[in-house]
Amino acid sequence: MASTFGTLFRVTTFGESHGGGVGVVVDGCPPRLPLTVEELQFDLDRRRPGQSRLVTQRDEADHAEILSGVFEGYTTGTPLAVLVRNKDHNSGAYDHLKDVYRPSHADYTYDAKYGFRDWAGGGRASARETIGRVAAAAIARKLLREVAGIEVLAWVASVGDIHAAVDSAAVTLDDVEGDPTRCPDPEAAARMTEAIKQARRDGDSLGGVVGCLARNVPAGLGEPVFDKLDAELAGGLMSLPAAKGVEIGSGFAGTRMSGLTHNDAFEPGDSGPVASTNHSGGIQGGISNGADITCRVAFKPTGTIASEQKTVTRDGDATTLAAKGRHDPCVLPRAVPMVEAMVLLSVADHWLRQQAIDVLPPFDVRP
Amino acid sequence: MASTFGTLFRVTTFGESHGGGVGVVVDGCPPRLPLTVEELQFDLDRRRPGQSRLVTQRDEADHAEILSGVFEGYTTGTPLAVLVRNKDHNSGAYDHLKDVYRPSHADYTYDAKYGFRDWAGGGRASARETIGRVAAAAIARKLLREVAGIEVLAWVASVGDIHAAVDSAAVTLDDVEGDPTRCPDPEAAARMTEAIKQARRDGDSLGGVVGCLARNVPAGLGEPVFDKLDAELAGGLMSLPAAKGVEIGSGFAGTRMSGLTHNDAFEPGDSGPVASTNHSGGIQGGISNGADITCRVAFKPTGTIASEQKTVTRDGDATTLAAKGRHDPCVLPRAVPMVEAMVLLSVADHWLRQQAIDVLPPFDVRP
Amino acid sequence: MASTFGTLFRVTTFGESHGGGVGVVVDGCPPRLPLTVEELQFDLDRRRPGQSRLVTQRDEADHAEILSGVFEGYTTGTPLAVLVRNKDHNSGAYDHLKDVYRPSHADYTYDAKYGFRDWAGGGRASARETIGRVAAAAIARKLLREVAGIEVLAWVASVGDIHAAVDSAAVTLDDVEGDPTRCPDPEAAARMTEAIKQARRDGDSLGGVVGCLARNVPAGLGEPVFDKLDAELAGGLMSLPAAKGVEIGSGFAGTRMSGLTHNDAFEPGDSGPVASTNHSGGIQGGISNGADITCRVAFKPTGTIASEQKTVTRDGDATTLAAKGRHDPCVLPRAVPMVEAMVLLSVADHWLRQQAIDVLPPFDVRP
Amino acid sequence: MASTFGTLFRVTTFGESHGGGVGVVVDGCPPRLPLTVEELQFDLDRRRPGQSRLVTQRDEADHAEILSGVFEGYTTGTPLAVLVRNKDHNSGAYDHLKDVYRPSHADYTYDAKYGFRDWAGGGRASARETIGRVAAAAIARKLLREVAGIEVLAWVASVGDIHAAVDSAAVTLDDVEGDPTRCPDPEAAARMTEAIKQARRDGDSLGGVVGCLARNVPAGLGEPVFDKLDAELAGGLMSLPAAKGVEIGSGFAGTRMSGLTHNDAFEPGDSGPVASTNHSGGIQGGISNGADITCRVAFKPTGTIASEQKTVTRDGDATTLAAKGRHDPCVLPRAVPMVEAMVLLSVADHWLRQQAIDVLPPFDVRP
Repeated sequence: MASTFGTLFRVTTFGESHGGGVGVVVDGCPPRLPLTVEELQFDLDRRRPGQSRLVTQRDEADHAEILSGVFEGYTTGTPLAVLVRNKDHNSGAYDHLKDVYRPSHADYTYDAKYGFRDWAGGGRASARETIGRVAAAAIARKLLREVAGIEVLAWVASVGDIHAAVDSAAVTLDDVEGDPTRCPDPEAAARMTEAIKQARRDGDSLGGVVGCLARNVPAGLGEPVFDKLDAELAGGLMSLPAAKGVEIGSGFAGTRMSGLTHNDAFEPGDSGPVASTNHSGGIQGGISNGADITCRVAFKPTGTIASEQKTVTRDGDATTLAAKGRHDPCVLPRAVPMVEAMVLLSVADHWLRQQAIDVLPPFDVRP
Repeated sequence: MASTFGTLFRVTTFGESHGGGVGVVVDGCPPRLPLTVEELQFDLDRRRPGQSRLVTQRDEADHAEILSGVFEGYTTGTPLAVLVRNKDHNSGAYDHLKDVYRPSHADYTYDAKYGFRDWAGGGRASARETIGRVAAAAIARKLLREVAGIEVLAWVASVGDIHAAVDSAAVTLDDVEGDPTRCPDPEAAARMTEAIKQARRDGDSLGGVVGCLARNVPAGLGEPVFDKLDAELAGGLMSLPAAKGVEIGSGFAGTRMSGLTHNDAFEPGDSGPVASTNHSGGIQGGISNGADITCRVAFKPTGTIASEQKTVTRDGDATTLAAKGRHDPCVLPRAVPMVEAMVLLSVADHWLRQQAIDVLPPFDVRP
Repeated sequence: MASTFGTLFRVTTFGESHGGGVGVVVDGCPPRLPLTVEELQFDLDRRRPGQSRLVTQRDEADHAEILSGVFEGYTTGTPLAVLVRNKDHNSGAYDHLKDVYRPSHADYTYDAKYGFRDWAGGGRASARETIGRVAAAAIARKLLREVAGIEVLAWVASVGDIHAAVDSAAVTLDDVEGDPTRCPDPEAAARMTEAIKQARRDGDSLGGVVGCLARNVPAGLGEPVFDKLDAELAGGLMSLPAAKGVEIGSGFAGTRMSGLTHNDAFEPGDSGPVASTNHSGGIQGGISNGADITCRVAFKPTGTIASEQKTVTRDGDATTLAAKGRHDPCVLPRAVPMVEAMVLLSVADHWLRQQAIDVLPPFDVRP
Repeated sequence: MASTFGTLFRVTTFGESHGGGVGVVVDGCPPRLPLTVEELQFDLDRRRPGQSRLVTQRDEADHAEILSGVFEGYTTGTPLAVLVRNKDHNSGAYDHLKDVYRPSHADYTYDAKYGFRDWAGGGRASARETIGRVAAAAIARKLLREVAGIEVLAWVASVGDIHAAVDSAAVTLDDVEGDPTRCPDPEAAARMTEAIKQARRDGDSLGGVVGCLARNVPAGLGEPVFDKLDAELAGGLMSLPAAKGVEIGSGFAGTRMSGLTHNDAFEPGDSGPVASTNHSGGIQGGISNGADITCRVAFKPTGTIASEQKTVTRDGDATTLAAKGRHDPCVLPRAVPMVEAMVLLSVADHWLRQQAIDVLPPFDVRP
């Protein structure tokens, strides 16, 4: 379903950049989970623009309201609806975009699909839609922590040609949040900051890669065939605005290794086999193997730039366009909580699905 | 749903490597499509092992039978069930795998999930499962050709470090099928052939990348938010056995470009704007823009190798394992029709979904 | 999905009797449909309590807000979110229900399911949830009228033992809305009014039957096997609060007829065969045949009554309970727009699904 | 999805009356369930025609084959595919139906929907499709017995005007199977037998009602809002061939009771409240309350009769038609396992769904 994600932890987002607001309905969250609106707000604030000079200066408070599904501080098992009002209603700022298609944006494709589009601030294609995802994922984060001690953490791994050195075994939320770039390698972070400032000065933009891992995911999550855990991750991550690539474990680099090197040899462990390396990224045959789940997401350089570009009008005439006003020269820092969101939603859904699988007693004697 | 793909063109596969057979139910194929079993067999034969010295010598005829949904040579609109019998029933060949976990395979993860596994030939995790996908995709291919002239074509773009030079604007099915590697660059194909033979001699294996494009896809297919066309492609492609990465358009390389270079400037065209470059890979905001859809899939080196590897038994003891018998040293040539299959299924589903969107008259005067 | 209905016209409701509000997300409504909030309000007002002395005097304005999915007066094709705030927040009125289970209500079953319940005003089990359905159905009503001239109309057919005489071929919305009972037979309506008032005086309640028809539904809607049009209607209608039975066409009375009498003989018509009788209720083999779709829904007498009843506390002790404050002695008048809602949602979904089926050219010569 | 039922215990049927065969794919059955093909065959034999002089004499062995999903006698957790070959291939027997629409059948509606139909033996609309449902339900029956001791049992409650007296608290499978009518009231069964024979002699047919109950269903199954247990039962049951009505608990009769009489007073019980009466039919607010689930399904008289009836041809001309060959004068006896099937599938699905809801610890102190 177009705006719905998940089978049991089901998330439906709604809302455009302008208009009444954006939000999400989460259906399938188990009852008796303690939950406050402040827990949602923490991740919403990480997603929010205007946090630093690196990202767009749009002033959005993004205060969430939980409309339903929580009673006396606990989830009830019924749908949680979360609403974030749109505050910045100067849609006149977009009048010049009404009849022109921004290059590498969704303007033309929405018109091709719907014959009509909400041209104010990107409408439904605005990254503001991800508010609903991030709010829902904050609920998933709380659930996964409570039931399984699962932790999901993402960071900026590269901006343009600048690559961070990150020890994924050791990286912490504080490391990530310690710099406005959300790159936990301070030296790389400094260079990224400079590059992003330069791109803004040049009327240009930059892309990059977000790395992400999930710790303490039990072995056994994910379902063959189409609902493999890596398949759901890939689909969810590629659905993020500006995403153009997804890797699990070794990804494209793994294609240049040979099987002897790439295979993750098993060693005996305390609670089952342990993979001595993790080229698989914690997923084998689509199912988690107990190792950290690792993935990477490629984000293209932001389409909206201040430099003049060639394009066409809605009537088909050639024209040029230069973005006015606020815009991100690099979405990477804000993409970090979005990547975490899709991993959290995927893992929560599969954790719940597994409860309906492991219902019969184990075998006394193996068949 | 675990073994189901698609919303309107819905594909459900079943079957294991051994046992009664493998197959698929396709629900939602429109009526009145002329269809013969031979059209399915063509793609099944491309997927089949034993086509050359490069791939596994397992002798599987893989003859398909259409059990339902076709009457007097036309689809009826009701579910098409396709069955391919398993013929090669020497499951004793797998006895040595009953109590040991092959590294980087699904053996351990299936046990962790289900507490029990069908150890004969990989069971449900066998690439034999893709027979159902390829059969269903052959139906989608016929449908897309009839209704929209859409063509989907994949090829081997790299094996290990060997990269092919492929002009995606010009490549044809004959180019791809002209060499057992399914690499349309003859010089690269020759080197790939040599590398694969060497890997076999070394008891090793190789990975690589499959490139794919879809031509003549009309602008407007794909739905925001989670069901973006690129999201569904990514999920479908990552669900293929051994897939570890997916790129749409510029993919990871695009993260190293700046916005000024990466943006696809629009130029006036005969039937709407035309992108002068295609870094977007034919998809913007999750919706097709009329340009060729381009994607790439990373396949890891085959896990099954003849060299001895360290692993553990089902009881948790350290042991070693060397694969016996037939196996692919490189899955890439056979992965080509599998990649096409997932692209065909995604595009067919979205083409049908668009029919339910474009139902109201266009605006006379734009609002 | 628990709170989602439909495949292409997908409706997800949220909200409880008390708390932030109730509402709905409609995903899949085609773009370019003119829509105003007043059109939703019309049906919401019909559903609203406090319209007459016959129904509960609770004062709820139920003003709807369209949060998303409409731009400059037209639907955009993206999710429509509709919110109705809860205004009547005196949840203290329900304190006496916190630890006791009302007979024939959802109190005990919610506790059994969730281990916890929102006891204020029935929580999610409140009929207030149907606000979301009615708002979504108002959109479906507009769509069906625009694309196919389809009209859906329900009325009160019986209250207790009082049965109305209704000519379903001629009945109009004005006939239905002409009396607070929503019974278009004035003589029966008068007796129903008296019976409902008497039930209120007696601290008792009454049930009854709502009849419904859909006019101008084209032949061909509904899908074998599980998604038959009558199956979806039955499921949707039985999901209404207090519903205990559903009939299509002749229903239970048809079981007492013989085939010779029950069969609807076909006669030649202007645009296909015409059934000379309509025991089938406009649906044969799960698919509409072009005749009026007719159905009936049984609603039990309201569970909440002022008389004292035996029950048990949450701790398992015997006690008695008598309802305080406002409550409907008979839900039938308010059930009318709810029944229409489920029929509208089912028909709209199947109308859209049919657009993805009828895509290939008709046969020139029949096979 | 058209031919799919269930969220976690997902059943997809395929096949027509003639052609390669009919069958089902069951995706989501938990692993480690002992299962043999004989267990499926037991219920398939109950569904099979030709069991007595009361039902059609068509000779169909209906031998099932389990194609996948079972390994060494246990389910593996992967899709179970079951195939029953069609044996009786004399499709020439149906040549006279190629161009004429049988009254109150699916002939015209399939043509209206698909522009084309498989006219051999009713094609997909044949009751033979229910083979797949019954096979899947036999798996659900085994699962529910193993995990929860749940038993589902149906019987013929009426044929035409002949009503059976059945003590639903005491009725057993042996009682039901003790007579070819599957009516456990011997006196009524004898009269039904006579009435059915007379209908056959008259070239006529009879309808009737099947009653069904589910015992030992734990409190808490079923989900608000649209996926209420009674809503899913109603949808599933109405999807059976020839079904025209569904009642849960008191059904339509309950509309003639007052609240004081209809309400099921709670009394303290050993494991929670016990309803002293069961007008609710074991379901309150869409969720099971621990009492027996009771429902009734109305089946119209069989459409196929030997007497001559008026109808039209595919070309729109008036004609007459009299059925030739074998046909049931009354489907009720064979409908019994079909009704059980839909109840079993609904309850199994909701039992599994509940496993993903009750995952957090209960409250020590109630909030």
